[in-house]
Amino acid sequence: MPPPSTNPTARIAIVGAGQVGGAVAYALILGSVACELLLIDVKVDLRDGQVRDLSDVAYATGGGMRVRAATHHEAGQCDIVVITAGSKYGFGETSIQHMQRNISVIRNVVKAMTPFRSDAIVLVVSNPVDLLTSIVQELAGLPKSQVFGSGTFLDSVRLRGLLADKAGVAANSIQLFVLGVHGDCQVVAWSSATIHGIPLDKVLSPDGFSHDELAQECKERAENIFHAKGATQFGVGSVVASICASILFDKRDVRPISHFQPEFGCCFSLPVILGRKGIIKTIKIPLGSEENAAIARSAERLKSTLERIDT
Amino acid sequence: MPPPSTNPTARIAIVGAGQVGGAVAYALILGSVACELLLIDVKVDLRDGQVRDLSDVAYATGGGMRVRAATHHEAGQCDIVVITAGSKYGFGETSIQHMQRNISVIRNVVKAMTPFRSDAIVLVVSNPVDLLTSIVQELAGLPKSQVFGSGTFLDSVRLRGLLADKAGVAANSIQLFVLGVHGDCQVVAWSSATIHGIPLDKVLSPDGFSHDELAQECKERAENIFHAKGATQFGVGSVVASICASILFDKRDVRPISHFQPEFGCCFSLPVILGRKGIIKTIKIPLGSEENAAIARSAERLKSTLERIDT
Amino acid sequence: MPPPSTNPTARIAIVGAGQVGGAVAYALILGSVACELLLIDVKVDLRDGQVRDLSDVAYATGGGMRVRAATHHEAGQCDIVVITAGSKYGFGETSIQHMQRNISVIRNVVKAMTPFRSDAIVLVVSNPVDLLTSIVQELAGLPKSQVFGSGTFLDSVRLRGLLADKAGVAANSIQLFVLGVHGDCQVVAWSSATIHGIPLDKVLSPDGFSHDELAQECKERAENIFHAKGATQFGVGSVVASICASILFDKRDVRPISHFQPEFGCCFSLPVILGRKGIIKTIKIPLGSEENAAIARSAERLKSTLERIDT
Amino acid sequence: MPPPSTNPTARIAIVGAGQVGGAVAYALILGSVACELLLIDVKVDLRDGQVRDLSDVAYATGGGMRVRAATHHEAGQCDIVVITAGSKYGFGETSIQHMQRNISVIRNVVKAMTPFRSDAIVLVVSNPVDLLTSIVQELAGLPKSQVFGSGTFLDSVRLRGLLADKAGVAANSIQLFVLGVHGDCQVVAWSSATIHGIPLDKVLSPDGFSHDELAQECKERAENIFHAKGATQFGVGSVVASICASILFDKRDVRPISHFQPEFGCCFSLPVILGRKGIIKTIKIPLGSEENAAIARSAERLKSTLERIDT
Repeated sequence: MPPPSTNPTARIAIVGAGQVGGAVAYALILGSVACELLLIDVKVDLRDGQVRDLSDVAYATGGGMRVRAATHHEAGQCDIVVITAGSKYGFGETSIQHMQRNISVIRNVVKAMTPFRSDAIVLVVSNPVDLLTSIVQELAGLPKSQVFGSGTFLDSVRLRGLLADKAGVAANSIQLFVLGVHGDCQVVAWSSATIHGIPLDKVLSPDGFSHDELAQECKERAENIFHAKGATQFGVGSVVASICASILFDKRDVRPISHFQPEFGCCFSLPVILGRKGIIKTIKIPLGSEENAAIARSAERLKSTLERIDT
Repeated sequence: MPPPSTNPTARIAIVGAGQVGGAVAYALILGSVACELLLIDVKVDLRDGQVRDLSDVAYATGGGMRVRAATHHEAGQCDIVVITAGSKYGFGETSIQHMQRNISVIRNVVKAMTPFRSDAIVLVVSNPVDLLTSIVQELAGLPKSQVFGSGTFLDSVRLRGLLADKAGVAANSIQLFVLGVHGDCQVVAWSSATIHGIPLDKVLSPDGFSHDELAQECKERAENIFHAKGATQFGVGSVVASICASILFDKRDVRPISHFQPEFGCCFSLPVILGRKGIIKTIKIPLGSEENAAIARSAERLKSTLERIDT
Repeated sequence: MPPPSTNPTARIAIVGAGQVGGAVAYALILGSVACELLLIDVKVDLRDGQVRDLSDVAYATGGGMRVRAATHHEAGQCDIVVITAGSKYGFGETSIQHMQRNISVIRNVVKAMTPFRSDAIVLVVSNPVDLLTSIVQELAGLPKSQVFGSGTFLDSVRLRGLLADKAGVAANSIQLFVLGVHGDCQVVAWSSATIHGIPLDKVLSPDGFSHDELAQECKERAENIFHAKGATQFGVGSVVASICASILFDKRDVRPISHFQPEFGCCFSLPVILGRKGIIKTIKIPLGSEENAAIARSAERLKSTLERIDT
Repeated sequence: MPPPSTNPTARIAIVGAGQVGGAVAYALILGSVACELLLIDVKVDLRDGQVRDLSDVAYATGGGMRVRAATHHEAGQCDIVVITAGSKYGFGETSIQHMQRNISVIRNVVKAMTPFRSDAIVLVVSNPVDLLTSIVQELAGLPKSQVFGSGTFLDSVRLRGLLADKAGVAANSIQLFVLGVHGDCQVVAWSSATIHGIPLDKVLSPDGFSHDELAQECKERAENIFHAKGATQFGVGSVVASICASILFDKRDVRPISHFQPEFGCCFSLPVILGRKGIIKTIKIPLGSEENAAIARSAERLKSTLERIDT
């Protein structure tokens, strides 16, 4: 057996040590999800400041996690690589220009990490998440089941929470998926919404709320938070930490995750089972024909954007 | 400063310090679910041995929980009273005699605790759980929403787990209720079984398993465990600790819990929402006509047993 | 018994919903430390953005915590009030002007909360922490044991961590206090530093490190982090969450906490035992004469600053 | 896809599925300490009953741990092997006969597991723990730093707890070691007892308690618990789970653990640093001459017993 010159314990790398990366790291340390946490960022001062602040958390909690700065190469040798890198809008920049710039950032980041450890899991969090996941998947040189994006998981959590508050139940007693391409075109799978398996409309009077309004509130929530506080980090931080736990503990949780859709040639969110090998299995969810059509439309649009980029 | 005759911190009493009571306490301490744990048992040596062994757990974990022996009267002043008291079969005793004896034990226990603190929650774990819950509810002098039994919650957890192993998903990604009177007559609500809201039969090929066989395996599981090791404590211990957490943290979890059914005049399990005030709300689950009939039959039988006892 | 018309479950208020308040809240939710979290801030948009982002965390974790915006008056009725309010330096503002302004902010905040619930615990985190704790204590109308500040707890955690890395042991296997007035004048109690009770110098060769350098690195750490990332929130967030847990679960942890020193007429950090009633007991730590003198000097300076302010 | 000859997820084997093994397993599952738990016992029914009961716990908690029956050979390929096997006293059996029988049980168990995975950690819990640890170490074919026993860790936890109750502080705010050969000859290192680094006698008036009485109460505690309830499982279960966490998360905790003492040629407890590679480092604790002499005496006795056995 090859000697693990490396420490045999679980390591997670976070590429991008900004607000989101910091919130992911904080949740991982508080939850003792791994043994070692590597922070990677081209902004060396920011990275080292985060390492210090987050080390203080590790010292305080006694969970034994070690936090340190690392190179991109080291990141590629971890159990999980969480990519949160990406730039904010520059002055006078168009949406297209910004996207182009972020693509370029991510490409460089991935190249600097390859070749990955053969069983590494790469989790893309940066936005636009489905587009970037599609690109990372092509570049990473890993099985498609090991490269995926946070997709609409946070959207799903939010919508369940909003609904839970209406119904007076715990958020995790609600089953409901937001699917498709994260953002304006994401699709709520209302037809399979349940409260602990009981169809939603059998429990909750439809008078109490409007599907469309809730879906809209969910869709605008990230933007509302961003405008109010200049960052959207805690929700996504806890959701990404939860994905890491599903992977490292091989939990087989069912999650809406952005992954490769052979039918469309790009990545977007549909339900999967998550474990140590990444996406263990996809789950076929029955959708209404309108829901299917909406997902297909958004996938086509993403696909055509991707084709323009590649050339 | 006025002495807090009511300690502001959460207290749980466990009445019956045997195998089940011990396993409940162990889980509560490891999970830091409350601040103080009171053990009550007429077998004073057993009780004090458990207090010592469980105090060692509290010392080791650093969660700050205090464990101590207490009187029945003190138990009635706690936030939650878990009743696990009850005798094993005596030599040459018939099933009826044993039931009569257990009823007598529980009646004495409840009388020794009354009057309860007005916001106390009483959770019956002893078997036969639905019968004893019905009796405790009459004697406790508390609102019906504050007195209930563990019912078929563990059965539901078991069946989800067995199914999860077949499906290769996490047990808590499955929604499925075992309902009705716990034991031989309990009913599986297959018609509302889902994997994260997706109907079971859309995900899992029905070839892979038999509903009846799984239901039977679930039903026999307690007995199998009992025969193999002389006690069935860990599963029930963790489930009861989870109910206590749902209550104390007012979590609003949806659970199959034995509670009063006005239509039948006795207690058995249907889904409810659990919070600090006990049963916050019942949830109407749509069942097949056969499922409904089976539940009604078992309820009638329980009701008639209860009537024989009361006279 | 007076009926708790209010929900009997534990509530924590965070006054000041900025970076530090957010990080405290995030840690409290991930750790399921309370049942309800109230955010208070005069910046209503910021507050509401934090409520949304942090609610997403609560939805994701399933711990059942509820997060909501609240008034100062509601804050005063909680089990614990964490004060993180305070302004950043204004343009061209001197250090004195800034302090004056922060004092004014805190005074208004406290007045808006009084009268406090009689068993409320008030924890001051804003800086300058010892000065503000002294002021809050005068205004709060609560027993002195119920009003205190985070003081040098984070400094102690940091120094233990830095030392732990040198010694190759877990940070919580090291006992070491930073004491006195938090900041430039804080004092390290090297004379009682131990590794699990064993005097430090018996375990760790003094060649390996310099006391003064470590103390200096610890003292500058907050500033280094602040310069690198524009905020210092995660370390303090986890430490404050830990204090809240010590209080709510009545854990009796020994902590260096800023509290009233009758001998000096102001607040600074010395070791205490923390529980549900706040500071349960102070602990007399034997210090070298130089250490004592340094603490006395810093206390005198703080006292004279306080006197200038009060008049 | 290449079969994972090295499963990337953490596995713990428990050899001996009785009361202690069950309590260890229960704590490991509730704490999500590993990914897979293997139970091994020659009593196949008992083992399978435990697997079922403990699987129910895993289903209930959602931590994702899998519990299954396994062979001795599989146990030897785990990250950690916890040995709790051993028989109770037979009818009319002398203490020597019983020890001989237990030695024989353990020898067979270890032989059936060899060769161990090269980085496996073997933790002996069965009694007499120091004697059995010494024997397992000889047979295991692993570096001495990877084979050790629970030793006096639980005794230390108990004594800290008893003292904590006297002092009104949290048990983990006390530093105090019970050392030497576990049992009648174990030695309390009073000379280095501290409350968060502060010498015990500076904090706690010696009038309040007697060292000898507390030490005696601690020594008799196991026996008292055993007589009261026929087993002593919860305290040891939580302590062993804590050791497993120290190892798997490479926490570097300082613990009194039974390990090889070259000076004496046998195993007993002195403080060490625990991590993924087992005993990372031993810690030299300064003891009084009487304490040292008492430890040496007990070691000589153990050594001579070992020599009689080996021949």
